[in-house]
Amino acid sequence: MIEVGIVGGTGYTGAELLRFLVQHPQARLRVITSRGEAGKAVAEVFPNLRGHTDLVFVPPAEAALASCDVVFFATPNGTAMTMARALLEAGTRVIDLAADFRLREASAWHHWYGMEHAAPELLEEAVYGLPEANRAAISAARLVANPGCYPTAVLLGLMPLMEAGVVDNTSLVADAKSGASGGGRNASVPLLLCETGESFKAYGVPGHRHLPEIRQGLAVMAGGAVGLTFVPHLVPMIRGIHATLYGRLVSHDTDLQRLFEERYRDEPFVDVLAAGGHPETRSVRGTNMCRIAVHRPQQGDTAVVLSVIDNLAKGAASQAIQNMNIMHGLPEATGLGAPGLLP
Amino acid sequence: MIEVGIVGGTGYTGAELLRFLVQHPQARLRVITSRGEAGKAVAEVFPNLRGHTDLVFVPPAEAALASCDVVFFATPNGTAMTMARALLEAGTRVIDLAADFRLREASAWHHWYGMEHAAPELLEEAVYGLPEANRAAISAARLVANPGCYPTAVLLGLMPLMEAGVVDNTSLVADAKSGASGGGRNASVPLLLCETGESFKAYGVPGHRHLPEIRQGLAVMAGGAVGLTFVPHLVPMIRGIHATLYGRLVSHDTDLQRLFEERYRDEPFVDVLAAGGHPETRSVRGTNMCRIAVHRPQQGDTAVVLSVIDNLAKGAASQAIQNMNIMHGLPEATGLGAPGLLP
Amino acid sequence: MIEVGIVGGTGYTGAELLRFLVQHPQARLRVITSRGEAGKAVAEVFPNLRGHTDLVFVPPAEAALASCDVVFFATPNGTAMTMARALLEAGTRVIDLAADFRLREASAWHHWYGMEHAAPELLEEAVYGLPEANRAAISAARLVANPGCYPTAVLLGLMPLMEAGVVDNTSLVADAKSGASGGGRNASVPLLLCETGESFKAYGVPGHRHLPEIRQGLAVMAGGAVGLTFVPHLVPMIRGIHATLYGRLVSHDTDLQRLFEERYRDEPFVDVLAAGGHPETRSVRGTNMCRIAVHRPQQGDTAVVLSVIDNLAKGAASQAIQNMNIMHGLPEATGLGAPGLLP
Amino acid sequence: MIEVGIVGGTGYTGAELLRFLVQHPQARLRVITSRGEAGKAVAEVFPNLRGHTDLVFVPPAEAALASCDVVFFATPNGTAMTMARALLEAGTRVIDLAADFRLREASAWHHWYGMEHAAPELLEEAVYGLPEANRAAISAARLVANPGCYPTAVLLGLMPLMEAGVVDNTSLVADAKSGASGGGRNASVPLLLCETGESFKAYGVPGHRHLPEIRQGLAVMAGGAVGLTFVPHLVPMIRGIHATLYGRLVSHDTDLQRLFEERYRDEPFVDVLAAGGHPETRSVRGTNMCRIAVHRPQQGDTAVVLSVIDNLAKGAASQAIQNMNIMHGLPEATGLGAPGLLP
Repeated sequence: MIEVGIVGGTGYTGAELLRFLVQHPQARLRVITSRGEAGKAVAEVFPNLRGHTDLVFVPPAEAALASCDVVFFATPNGTAMTMARALLEAGTRVIDLAADFRLREASAWHHWYGMEHAAPELLEEAVYGLPEANRAAISAARLVANPGCYPTAVLLGLMPLMEAGVVDNTSLVADAKSGASGGGRNASVPLLLCETGESFKAYGVPGHRHLPEIRQGLAVMAGGAVGLTFVPHLVPMIRGIHATLYGRLVSHDTDLQRLFEERYRDEPFVDVLAAGGHPETRSVRGTNMCRIAVHRPQQGDTAVVLSVIDNLAKGAASQAIQNMNIMHGLPEATGLGAPGLLP
Repeated sequence: MIEVGIVGGTGYTGAELLRFLVQHPQARLRVITSRGEAGKAVAEVFPNLRGHTDLVFVPPAEAALASCDVVFFATPNGTAMTMARALLEAGTRVIDLAADFRLREASAWHHWYGMEHAAPELLEEAVYGLPEANRAAISAARLVANPGCYPTAVLLGLMPLMEAGVVDNTSLVADAKSGASGGGRNASVPLLLCETGESFKAYGVPGHRHLPEIRQGLAVMAGGAVGLTFVPHLVPMIRGIHATLYGRLVSHDTDLQRLFEERYRDEPFVDVLAAGGHPETRSVRGTNMCRIAVHRPQQGDTAVVLSVIDNLAKGAASQAIQNMNIMHGLPEATGLGAPGLLP
Repeated sequence: MIEVGIVGGTGYTGAELLRFLVQHPQARLRVITSRGEAGKAVAEVFPNLRGHTDLVFVPPAEAALASCDVVFFATPNGTAMTMARALLEAGTRVIDLAADFRLREASAWHHWYGMEHAAPELLEEAVYGLPEANRAAISAARLVANPGCYPTAVLLGLMPLMEAGVVDNTSLVADAKSGASGGGRNASVPLLLCETGESFKAYGVPGHRHLPEIRQGLAVMAGGAVGLTFVPHLVPMIRGIHATLYGRLVSHDTDLQRLFEERYRDEPFVDVLAAGGHPETRSVRGTNMCRIAVHRPQQGDTAVVLSVIDNLAKGAASQAIQNMNIMHGLPEATGLGAPGLLP
Repeated sequence: MIEVGIVGGTGYTGAELLRFLVQHPQARLRVITSRGEAGKAVAEVFPNLRGHTDLVFVPPAEAALASCDVVFFATPNGTAMTMARALLEAGTRVIDLAADFRLREASAWHHWYGMEHAAPELLEEAVYGLPEANRAAISAARLVANPGCYPTAVLLGLMPLMEAGVVDNTSLVADAKSGASGGGRNASVPLLLCETGESFKAYGVPGHRHLPEIRQGLAVMAGGAVGLTFVPHLVPMIRGIHATLYGRLVSHDTDLQRLFEERYRDEPFVDVLAAGGHPETRSVRGTNMCRIAVHRPQQGDTAVVLSVIDNLAKGAASQAIQNMNIMHGLPEATGLGAPGLLP
């Protein structure tokens, strides 16, 4: 039984971690911290967990995190980097769902996140936790940087094209759309139902923090720097990301459908639709699945990839548990097998 | 292993039955019928089930239903009553999620559903499948009439009051609100997103088919006829029912909170909130749970009960599986243990 | 031309006042205040107003409110009561969209709003601005207390019954449902799309601030105290209130349909549906209209009234403008004539 | 006073035409046809119009359309082409909101719409009703092909770039998102709230009927054929289109912000946001406005244009009225001046 701790469990990724962990047959949730809700029962904050856990939020300072086998950070950016070293030294493995260890360069982190990195010496060791790209490294990792939600959808959608070198890497376009839970469970006017409901907009066009993360991931796959335009949008719904990805084909005789099917044949959590398909975000709601379709409209020179995930699940919590499973030698789908909720 | 058949699996209750059954450790789904989708893979109609079932819809005439241990009818009203007898005679148990066997009187059925009843001789045998009221009878039943969605929410909300005789039974009010999935997966203008989205309305005020079903259930609990005003409303959301129930207290010294807690102490799927609570429908989304709070505003003479369920789950599919578990001597919560999806 | 000022224009009722006023042919919006957004263009905060106004928010202290003919307060509760006297003394009429002057008794205000009333001497003078009840008094008023959103829907729905004395006044039930804009444009977790979307709940069952306001209004109509149970609910939509009202008939030979039609025959903003109707909130979206249907289900002893308004319009801003029109001798519908947005 | 007829007024574009026309000071709606709803009051089908019109739907055969000054077709594709000639010969001007006269080539129409064109001789005369491109021709036209919703958003977003020749015309990308009302008011499972709510998907990636219309329009602007990838998506909301447009810059010293501002300086219904802006669809809800922002992320070689309209208004009904105003020499904004409904 894996002994698990969670730091910062009152946001949506924390809630989703809890939902998966209370059902996980090989994990035991021992401790969960919160500054704001310390002393309150978890099930009081998240009433869907009534009857599923008796856990109570504890202040971070009082949490026996170092006695856990693995600790998840579901904190704002900038917290895990201050606590990770001590945990690692105590022999506890760390999976950070925030951005602290995603970028390889401390300078890039400083540029995009506006903070000096507190543990730059850990950046090299940290493994980017995208199992479909880094499974072996994850299995041996002490410190996993769980990917961002947009990066997960975009990287899985473009990986076969990058690896096969069939599109022009200088002019990629990732037009991505996210439900409002990507904005977190924070008191904020722009995320009110009355502000985001019945409306649609782009945001962060001049530059979004997931851009360098996506570029970094694509560069590894492509074996060199890529040119990417990334535009995120806010969808009036709770969960789900849909990435629509455009690449200009440099090789016109590749069977794109077959390329994707072969690349993901053995992946338990990537599902390539039949040719002509259009994945819906609701088909992956609450699951660790990524569903992908690839098109070449009018047999022209543009490949269009449609990639959907649940931003809180494969884009955060369930991918973190997939990583935990890999790190602990469990079957990768342990605790992640339920189908999505539809309708 | 229970061998299961489903008749009419392309609506929302069918989809929800499928979602629960593919995860049920003691049930094996053998056959599912559909006229309209015969020959199509289940996972093509419900993409959330890709990877979870290879089943293909078959025409009703070709389905080996009689070799199943139990058959669920997720059909429109009026179908199960024409097929139930043959199945029962073959030794197959039947759980009807439609209304065919809910009313005790064939004449009432004719009045409210506008059809002659095709199997009136089965009405007496049929057991009303509300486990919290009829557990023993269900366990021995061959034919279970699974309760309607509104009746489930209303009956569980009023049962402690009826049994204790603490409210005036002549002037009950049930103001109930349902998500749009209660209207089914049918091509219909009034259920379009553009018609039901961003709006709220009552419907069926002159008389809704669930009214006689609720009255019949209350009468059993109260030991005599009751006077009930029932007003259903349509909420711009997918899943969930919230019943707000009003009764005039005839006894003012009953501790209502304690009454409810004691009545439901041993019920695995009824959760009484602490005093002062307000249950949200999302807290039970996708689950078999009913959450209830009871109030006596300003210590006046009116009891107000708030009762929430997921209309497709406890209001239909998962309650049907709860009944199946009871009928087969399984632990009642088998396959029904996952927490709700929140947010 | 009426010279208009608005105090506190950055909430939803402020936004709605602005939307109506920029189209009003007899009003000129001269000044609008905001502490938080002072110096910012109105159209920057509310982009739907780009091209419709060049106004800039000014700090309250710098606003020449006393030179306006009428000042609307779209402020939190407790502000208007500190500023009204000075304006009235300067000859400016005041319409308060908050609750400061709605309750006749300062002690009741203190009880429900938790503040000492700052201008109790004005309470008697203040006219409750429900035109259908108080038209004559409004036309002469210096100080109008614009009704709350729930009270508007409930009072208009029950007024004919109260005045005619046909229901038992001791056991009224008002089950009311509101879109999320009733909660205001404030940074608040419970009003996030991810918290209120796809869910439904009651709130404030033990006691909501609109209860004493409704009771007071009903008592005037009924000529004596009434017993009312009021339960508000939150609907996952932006605008709209639906009140479902229940009264036990004490007189069974009244033609309810005719009673309502006659009571509202000359009212420009109350529309009684034909017998058997079910009004939808969307039919009044963005308008000053209240639509009502009255039922007597199964010819029983309970009257059920369905009453819908737009909480931001007839429940706040457009009713305030209706009051302004009455106070200035304009045709009552001036600037309020546009039909609702559907779908 | 312009005498107006509408053919096919029971869909969403018909509803929106009605909403605008009942408020139009220079138009008088004389006749509206419907096969399915003949004999029914318009206000019964669209309850927001109660009190605004007494019109009753009449069967097409009985409608005195030829005595109108102008007739709008709000019909399915393929109807206007069978009726237009007779009306034109009677001296009635025709504005078709369907696709019948949008494509210049009858063969293209046949290819994309699967029907032989019934009036190919009118295609040359028909004027494409995008005022910002064709104002002079519209003013003299007898027959106007009102643009599609996606084409309006995309063409207005790309026009300045096309005319200035600053992007590579062979690799344009239009990633467009529409609310569900674009799918019409038809009984259809995929447009149910339970199917489109809380989900997001692309559709028609292999080829959507608006693709040839957009290409044709761009070609005129660019002075030659263009290469365009067009991917439409379905947003879980009622109204609104957001087009995100990508073009590779071939000239890097153009000030894009200034280019857009100058191109649209005198346009009453195109509003260019300040640099760095992100338009929201709700800001144009119910209005004839198109709001646009142009970006050049990280000063790279890709121009990103964000263009929003209300698909039922500027994308259909209000643009048709804008065309009517132009055709009749009225100020272009007559009857189109109200600000959008926000929130």
